[in-house]
Amino acid sequence: MSSRLRFLTAGESHGPALTAILEGMPAGLALAPADIDPDLARRQGLGANGHPYPGASARMGIEHDAVEILGGVLAGLTTGAPIALLVWNRDHHAWKGRAIEPLGVPRPGHADLAAAVKYGYRDLRLGLERASARETAARVAVGAICRKLLAEFGIRVGSYVSAIGGVSAVLSAMSLEERLEAAAASDLKCPNATAAAKMAARLREIARAGDTAGGVLEVIALGVPPGLGSHVHWDRRLSGRLGGALLSIPGVKGVEIGEAFETAGRPGSEAHDEIALAASGSGLTRPTNRAGGLEGGITNGQPIILRAAMKPIATTRTKVRSVDLATGETKPAGYERSDTCAVPRAAVVGEAMVSIVLADALVEKLGGDSMTEMRPRYQALRHMRLEDVPVGGHPALFWP
Amino acid sequence: MSSRLRFLTAGESHGPALTAILEGMPAGLALAPADIDPDLARRQGLGANGHPYPGASARMGIEHDAVEILGGVLAGLTTGAPIALLVWNRDHHAWKGRAIEPLGVPRPGHADLAAAVKYGYRDLRLGLERASARETAARVAVGAICRKLLAEFGIRVGSYVSAIGGVSAVLSAMSLEERLEAAAASDLKCPNATAAAKMAARLREIARAGDTAGGVLEVIALGVPPGLGSHVHWDRRLSGRLGGALLSIPGVKGVEIGEAFETAGRPGSEAHDEIALAASGSGLTRPTNRAGGLEGGITNGQPIILRAAMKPIATTRTKVRSVDLATGETKPAGYERSDTCAVPRAAVVGEAMVSIVLADALVEKLGGDSMTEMRPRYQALRHMRLEDVPVGGHPALFWP
Amino acid sequence: MSSRLRFLTAGESHGPALTAILEGMPAGLALAPADIDPDLARRQGLGANGHPYPGASARMGIEHDAVEILGGVLAGLTTGAPIALLVWNRDHHAWKGRAIEPLGVPRPGHADLAAAVKYGYRDLRLGLERASARETAARVAVGAICRKLLAEFGIRVGSYVSAIGGVSAVLSAMSLEERLEAAAASDLKCPNATAAAKMAARLREIARAGDTAGGVLEVIALGVPPGLGSHVHWDRRLSGRLGGALLSIPGVKGVEIGEAFETAGRPGSEAHDEIALAASGSGLTRPTNRAGGLEGGITNGQPIILRAAMKPIATTRTKVRSVDLATGETKPAGYERSDTCAVPRAAVVGEAMVSIVLADALVEKLGGDSMTEMRPRYQALRHMRLEDVPVGGHPALFWP
Amino acid sequence: MSSRLRFLTAGESHGPALTAILEGMPAGLALAPADIDPDLARRQGLGANGHPYPGASARMGIEHDAVEILGGVLAGLTTGAPIALLVWNRDHHAWKGRAIEPLGVPRPGHADLAAAVKYGYRDLRLGLERASARETAARVAVGAICRKLLAEFGIRVGSYVSAIGGVSAVLSAMSLEERLEAAAASDLKCPNATAAAKMAARLREIARAGDTAGGVLEVIALGVPPGLGSHVHWDRRLSGRLGGALLSIPGVKGVEIGEAFETAGRPGSEAHDEIALAASGSGLTRPTNRAGGLEGGITNGQPIILRAAMKPIATTRTKVRSVDLATGETKPAGYERSDTCAVPRAAVVGEAMVSIVLADALVEKLGGDSMTEMRPRYQALRHMRLEDVPVGGHPALFWP
Repeated sequence: MSSRLRFLTAGESHGPALTAILEGMPAGLALAPADIDPDLARRQGLGANGHPYPGASARMGIEHDAVEILGGVLAGLTTGAPIALLVWNRDHHAWKGRAIEPLGVPRPGHADLAAAVKYGYRDLRLGLERASARETAARVAVGAICRKLLAEFGIRVGSYVSAIGGVSAVLSAMSLEERLEAAAASDLKCPNATAAAKMAARLREIARAGDTAGGVLEVIALGVPPGLGSHVHWDRRLSGRLGGALLSIPGVKGVEIGEAFETAGRPGSEAHDEIALAASGSGLTRPTNRAGGLEGGITNGQPIILRAAMKPIATTRTKVRSVDLATGETKPAGYERSDTCAVPRAAVVGEAMVSIVLADALVEKLGGDSMTEMRPRYQALRHMRLEDVPVGGHPALFWP
Repeated sequence: MSSRLRFLTAGESHGPALTAILEGMPAGLALAPADIDPDLARRQGLGANGHPYPGASARMGIEHDAVEILGGVLAGLTTGAPIALLVWNRDHHAWKGRAIEPLGVPRPGHADLAAAVKYGYRDLRLGLERASARETAARVAVGAICRKLLAEFGIRVGSYVSAIGGVSAVLSAMSLEERLEAAAASDLKCPNATAAAKMAARLREIARAGDTAGGVLEVIALGVPPGLGSHVHWDRRLSGRLGGALLSIPGVKGVEIGEAFETAGRPGSEAHDEIALAASGSGLTRPTNRAGGLEGGITNGQPIILRAAMKPIATTRTKVRSVDLATGETKPAGYERSDTCAVPRAAVVGEAMVSIVLADALVEKLGGDSMTEMRPRYQALRHMRLEDVPVGGHPALFWP
Repeated sequence: MSSRLRFLTAGESHGPALTAILEGMPAGLALAPADIDPDLARRQGLGANGHPYPGASARMGIEHDAVEILGGVLAGLTTGAPIALLVWNRDHHAWKGRAIEPLGVPRPGHADLAAAVKYGYRDLRLGLERASARETAARVAVGAICRKLLAEFGIRVGSYVSAIGGVSAVLSAMSLEERLEAAAASDLKCPNATAAAKMAARLREIARAGDTAGGVLEVIALGVPPGLGSHVHWDRRLSGRLGGALLSIPGVKGVEIGEAFETAGRPGSEAHDEIALAASGSGLTRPTNRAGGLEGGITNGQPIILRAAMKPIATTRTKVRSVDLATGETKPAGYERSDTCAVPRAAVVGEAMVSIVLADALVEKLGGDSMTEMRPRYQALRHMRLEDVPVGGHPALFWP
Repeated sequence: MSSRLRFLTAGESHGPALTAILEGMPAGLALAPADIDPDLARRQGLGANGHPYPGASARMGIEHDAVEILGGVLAGLTTGAPIALLVWNRDHHAWKGRAIEPLGVPRPGHADLAAAVKYGYRDLRLGLERASARETAARVAVGAICRKLLAEFGIRVGSYVSAIGGVSAVLSAMSLEERLEAAAASDLKCPNATAAAKMAARLREIARAGDTAGGVLEVIALGVPPGLGSHVHWDRRLSGRLGGALLSIPGVKGVEIGEAFETAGRPGSEAHDEIALAASGSGLTRPTNRAGGLEGGITNGQPIILRAAMKPIATTRTKVRSVDLATGETKPAGYERSDTCAVPRAAVVGEAMVSIVLADALVEKLGGDSMTEMRPRYQALRHMRLEDVPVGGHPALFWP
């Protein structure tokens, strides 16, 4: 579907900078680098103490990303004009002018080979430089703006890690709010402290073996009004737009809305969420949330729950067999500086992508050239909270 | 990303017809209703004997969908002009003019409530009519055209069912080709006959209980050249485009590329696919396919393997609690005629969506206003089969 | 720019039908074929008496286009779902199965040669069938729906003819409303009766000579609120969107917003429209409208005035030199049944294209899944009429 | 239509920088700032001597725009990744931190009033900053890259000025190539030296009067192959895409393809371009080019000729009446530093927009992830020059 918001990102891993332009944001949203930089730091895996989490690449210690806003904001407010973002690569100077050996042995699990075939690269670094997850910093910057917009309407996007390296965390006893709170205090973003300790131990063990780990991250959105997305056309369904956005994150290979694969095995009578009267008596509520907040591709007023499976980092110190494309000889794939596990960082990217998709859907719903215009429109939609959906004799809100 | 192919579908479940327009197909592709109708029949769950599979709705017996091509094809060949497709709803006459009771109790798991909130419907049928999976017949018709295009370049898209109602089929011993062949002979599209029998038994049991079942379907693409999709921008990554397309199918709530959730728990050294010299010695091969055919969001010359989790049909005969929006009374959700299990039919829709995305990516790669133009371009791309990727002294194909 | 409304059309001149799907219309708009058919008749050049205007093709007598709505409308109201439109070609049966001689001599001024080169057609009819202005009937049907939406917000789109075959009409003494009224009563849609008579005489003369005529049509929009379109990105500017839409009409080769070419020669002090206090004293007005309703690519609350130059019909009975592509011999281009002059009919297509672009911009501005949602939003925008733009101590409406 | 190339621009007139991202360019195109800076200088109206032309704003003397390429180019070649461009505003430091009086009196002819109504600005500078033609520098930078791509395929885009301030130049005796050559040597870009002298005199006179001038610019494209654009769907027609792009340039209010308004008054027998055998005898030629290179919305192998009418600069020293929005008092619009005439500079922007649209259409036609892929495809299209369109017994190139 054509989206109301548009953005493009550019920049290479060791190039001078990452750039992004976000077009379509309403005017009048307060915006400063301080709204964006914390998310950039979170993506870098930096905890409250400014140090990388266990398993994060050493590069993280080098760069403290900071955004410059080069357009679209005047006097601290967005103007409705495209917003330009620039994040300098502090690493660039170390690389600039240095003779870098061409990469000729494609690394399994990376874009190396497929990108070379597609674009005709001889030096595989031409693909690697853009395929690197460094690119996601630009998405996170864009996502932080969208998150700011959503927050103005009471919508909050967060994430946590539920599995790393085969260690899964039991979270069913915790509310979503508790999970977010606990994750914020955890190096690995895992809300269950016991599981987090096991994950950390597992990561140390994996690192010692020169190996890497994947895992599962969950992105949730709270306060989402019902009625975003639509059932009327395949590409308006928010399920596909959210899922597709998560699957565009490097390393993410699977997505569930709610607990999709488990639900697929249940009988229908235990797979859906009953509709009940809210305590107030005049609105609705849902006792369960198996649907993960989406019915018919539309938000249903419940929290959105998305799970993403991330494969282990493809760059391992253990030798993985490959072929030197220039000589035709079998060779182990080379090692490039990398994380042992990027799941906690990918969770931040997941938040960004979900924020972007939701902001887009919200702007579709409200229209809106300015916050001044959007706010009363939102207020006028009484049923933008599920418990305010009129029941019992409010037919005037409906047609025909 | 902006796509080279565009299509829109329209039509309601009990309206006069489904309509679709597909724009952007090259000229010179042979096309007739006979290329489309078999997929429509497969979507209806009709086996070789013309009868619905166990668990398919009785409606299937009523309608034998047949497409009319109303534009874009002259003398049996596409012209490059938009292709118009029309599928009459044979059911329509039975409904036309009949007084239909408005639906006021939203059915959990359906779009009913969310759509009503979004569009302000009082009669929930206004949402139901378009949210119905009947709409997917139009997608299947569009997908059949894309499949025809792909076939011209040796690409084949197929599907099978690997789980229904909690019964999973072990398929690891079968090649992908064997799975497709066996699925074609199975009512439930399950390649493993023993599992299929268990699934059928389970479905009968579930039907007797007035309940419904979900499951897992797998869509695969064989003969896919490397180099479709791209790592350069998030919305060009084929992983997100394919996954998003599958997640747009009614009832599909989860997607995996390869075995994503399992791979997420493995160490990196066992999660990727080594690169080896092909038997010919001059090209490449991959001994495993854990990546499911996609690396860096780009096809890597391996078969594409996608798994989709489908929730059970939301309409059950067992009473699910809901609320009458007009009166505010708690009421059980009504029952509408429906399948017990739609997984085998959804698999056909999955094939269609995957065919559409792949055809789009292929037209991007080749450009192409006509088959005459596209064919030699494809041939010129020696490395459009993985085993033809040049190794050992073929630097001329690469730049700089 | 990504547009909120999307539509695709399909169908050939002598094929079975024209089809269109319009996606993105809000729910709750009353819609019936009777809203569309009158525009189809006007495009056919049929006057109040049901006869074609002087210069219109005889085919016009054959076909009385009538639309069928096959989706998106239930109980007389749009549902928000895609709207499918079908117009059968009554002419089709006369052509069906008839052996039609292939066309091998490209006609200058038509798409024949360029389309054959592009798509590799040997039989030029493959291009002609879709390049024919018959296609515009589908656009007119789509435009009629958009016109209906605009009318709900007090916006009216109309057109008239100001020049045919070198005969220009002086219209400066007439208000825009008077021009529309007079045009409606004129066979040639020319508001100035004296000029219309001269045009008719000129057309008879041209027809006798076996020649054809072009002219100038003007499309205007009344009641357009300020603030549609935007200056913030090149493809949001309504000037380009409107102009591009008119230039997509077969035969239209030039477009002016206001009197662009004349204004280009004036000094700046006489080229713009002063801003003055409205009679009410609390709002604004513009004494002149040289800008044609657009400043900075945004509607400014004045009527939109667009002029389009249409070349003469390319099919003439007089011999135009061409080449038989099969034999390489010089040959006169063949004659296909055609109008002498299509300007009055193209004006209706111009109305449709302008209606589509404006409806798209309006939906962008208001958001809106339903009329119920859009109406109060429109009301809340006090400054959606120029005379309501607050002046003098209403700073609260502005930020920061 | 969805375009293969995408670009976004950002940045304000007095902000820190202009930014642009161009996505979709093939890999392997040599690209350096030296390919872009000359066009930036031309847009600034700087002649060979580095001084502004008569009528150009003094600001032009201040800024010598220079682009930085921040992404998408490695080792001097594009990689297929998005290309990021940055042009610092040298003027910015003079403005930074300075208290700037808010602008409360909208200037007629500018976006001021319409933008304020749309976005709810109180300070009109919020609109002015982005609506300023300074923004077009980013388009020119993007256009220069597209021009480089086109040049690789022998396509050349140029421009000249044919009227300023009511003084028109007679150019009919000069070939298009001669016009471009003569324009390059003219301060005002006018190929006819006598007319140029009159224009300069007129501009001095207008400047003395504190007034401004508009004019007509012409953009042409030479070496354009037939077959770009398409007749099959309204938004694929290159006429609308080119015309819409020109009408998106600030100040441009009219567009002609060829001499549209004049041709509209001619009889059909004198309005089109005959098709003749090329001198070689085996291909085709067109003795005239009234169509301006486009038939049926498709390039026909002739030069593309586009004329754009630009209104006079809206900012004049002569007092134009307006209203102070804060007080409601009638006031003359303020004066902001500005050109007397921007037509020669707008011509460079016109070249950029035409280059962008043509590059997009070329990439559509050829597909193409890399120059290596695109070059032989272009060669294979024998009929990509009009004189190579096969006639007389080459049916094999056509279908069916």
